[in-house]
Amino acid sequence: MSAWVLPDHIADVLPSEARHIEELRRGLLDTARSYGYELVMPPLLEYLESLLTGTGEALNLQTFKLVDQISGRSLGLRADMTQQVARIDAHLLNRQGVTRLCYCGPVLHATQDRPRASREPLQFGAEIYGHAGPEADVEALSLALACVQGAGVSGFTVDLGDVRIVRSLLAGVMVDASVLQKVHAALAAKDATGLAALTKSFPQTAREGLQALLQLYGDVSVLDEAEKALARTPGTLHVLQHLKWFATQFPQANLTFDLADVRGYSYYSGTRFAVYAPGASDALVRGGRYDEVGAVFGRNRPAAGFSLDIKQLVSVVPSRPLRAAIRAPWGNDAQLSQAIAQLRSQGETVVCVLPGHESEVDEFDCDRALVLSAGQWVVQAI
Amino acid sequence: MSAWVLPDHIADVLPSEARHIEELRRGLLDTARSYGYELVMPPLLEYLESLLTGTGEALNLQTFKLVDQISGRSLGLRADMTQQVARIDAHLLNRQGVTRLCYCGPVLHATQDRPRASREPLQFGAEIYGHAGPEADVEALSLALACVQGAGVSGFTVDLGDVRIVRSLLAGVMVDASVLQKVHAALAAKDATGLAALTKSFPQTAREGLQALLQLYGDVSVLDEAEKALARTPGTLHVLQHLKWFATQFPQANLTFDLADVRGYSYYSGTRFAVYAPGASDALVRGGRYDEVGAVFGRNRPAAGFSLDIKQLVSVVPSRPLRAAIRAPWGNDAQLSQAIAQLRSQGETVVCVLPGHESEVDEFDCDRALVLSAGQWVVQAI
Repeated sequence: MSAWVLPDHIADVLPSEARHIEELRRGLLDTARSYGYELVMPPLLEYLESLLTGTGEALNLQTFKLVDQISGRSLGLRADMTQQVARIDAHLLNRQGVTRLCYCGPVLHATQDRPRASREPLQFGAEIYGHAGPEADVEALSLALACVQGAGVSGFTVDLGDVRIVRSLLAGVMVDASVLQKVHAALAAKDATGLAALTKSFPQTAREGLQALLQLYGDVSVLDEAEKALARTPGTLHVLQHLKWFATQFPQANLTFDLADVRGYSYYSGTRFAVYAPGASDALVRGGRYDEVGAVFGRNRPAAGFSLDIKQLVSVVPSRPLRAAIRAPWGNDAQLSQAIAQLRSQGETVVCVLPGHESEVDEFDCDRALVLSAGQWVVQAI
Repeated sequence: MSAWVLPDHIADVLPSEARHIEELRRGLLDTARSYGYELVMPPLLEYLESLLTGTGEALNLQTFKLVDQISGRSLGLRADMTQQVARIDAHLLNRQGVTRLCYCGPVLHATQDRPRASREPLQFGAEIYGHAGPEADVEALSLALACVQGAGVSGFTVDLGDVRIVRSLLAGVMVDASVLQKVHAALAAKDATGLAALTKSFPQTAREGLQALLQLYGDVSVLDEAEKALARTPGTLHVLQHLKWFATQFPQANLTFDLADVRGYSYYSGTRFAVYAPGASDALVRGGRYDEVGAVFGRNRPAAGFSLDIKQLVSVVPSRPLRAAIRAPWGNDAQLSQAIAQLRSQGETVVCVLPGHESEVDEFDCDRALVLSAGQWVVQAI
């Protein structure tokens, strides 16, 4: 086995892509900051209990485990940063008012979570805590769209849903967790036959409502159809009206609805959104409201937010040209050093050609050279 | 055990420090880019053999190990990125000419490598491959100093040494690795008695030369003293003259020399440098020449470079003030939204006050407010 072989779905990022990722990263953080989101940096590893506290089995399976030789305890490598940021809001900052936080860093997945995904995504996300009203949901999606647009994604659609609809349909239905999981899977796969079999013993309202959900996807007219189809289920009307209002807040966005999408069911507590873009095999952005995320850290307060993987984002946006650089000779001359320093301080890339390497091709595209002309160092086109 | 307790020497980075780290990070990457160094992003984990190939036992002890459930093989979390970048130069890029690479990312240490150090440093570094001449060493230190200065470090000193001096003294001395390790420890501790005992059976030239090294630290005059003291050891004169020349390349720097410093002995192949700053318990930057770093990846070519920990760097530079922000009301008004979007696109932070939170104190220092005045949204001082 060669020393340079990497584990499956783990890769180096080479210069042209790395530069693009770094530019996207800065743009995302700057956009979040312009909305008043403060950057935090949680650690890569934590005690396993802290990382998995309050989260589902899925995150457990995705988390790499190792042993801390200092404490002898089990540690986990973060597979998601949302929990960590909730911990920071709840325990470290512990503010009374609205708190806006953003983060950006690598996470690690023990297994691939979708085909062609890296096991080391670069997660960026933003969270708003402390406001239960729908304005926080609006701000979260607004910021997500500003991030996606700023990155140069075009032709994207925004899919909306709300876990409270399925939750309302299942309210009072006595069913164990394994059946519930199968119901979710059947909803996700839009499998009418499977769903019918699973819900045979359910009360009629629940059974018919769940069947109806399978058809309730498409544009905003879905919400009117849903009002009719789910009229007998208490609680759904309120949610549907909220979704309608929510849709009016994004008149420019290309919105779709999928009321059977229960991805993140155990996690979200209200409206959820996903941004899809041409060329991406899965949602670019997922987010929504998850009010209980801080509860295990002793602070059960409202929360909404989103996250995305910059490594996925970079694959769907056009690459950016490398800014051209300036070639300069290597030398001890004080005037030369000063000329180089000045160009660099102006943001130019100045590549010094080391002695003996004059005929090599630069990796940086040098379109100019620093040359001595009449006793002065001047930049000339090559 | 509370869910928010973190492992020893692992910490969250909270907003004010996180912002500062992010600013330093950008400054360092921009400085490296202005010198023509291309960014690469190696992965956080690799097969253990690849990570530890060609490195010393010290890195092995510092490396967290875990099992890859896909391959069943042992993985390591990177404790240092230098090896990884050498792998990229050797195998992935495989260019003929000079290659300049830089990198920035977290590394993890199973144990603390110095008191008060984080087990999750944020490593930044730069490497230049393919040039055997001293100009590459000069460029590496020049860039390191530009980085340190750009970060706002003041009053720093640069310590120089060269592992070839100790290597020359020990050339031909038959001694096993455990004794060698003790000799290095005695040199590092400037322990004359211990060193005398360890080198009792060494040839006279080696014994006296090693003893002499213990006194050979201080300003540039040390090099003249060394020329006399080590005159009988072949190979040292050349190295000392190189160090003298090297010193002349940095007339502005506050230089010191320590010829007994053998830190990184197994790693460096020539001149090494370290930058010390007031307030830092250990060197801020370490670097030098390590020509054999790519050999295990099938490409034994010249290399020089340096690295630093941004988390240590941030602790020795003055904190930077947070740029003041603008408060804005929350609302659906199209004109308001447009005014906010425009301010944000100009780089301003605009914090929307969500309904019901008007009396809260902003975490961002808002010194202005967006208010409706005569039908126009205008920014006013608060």
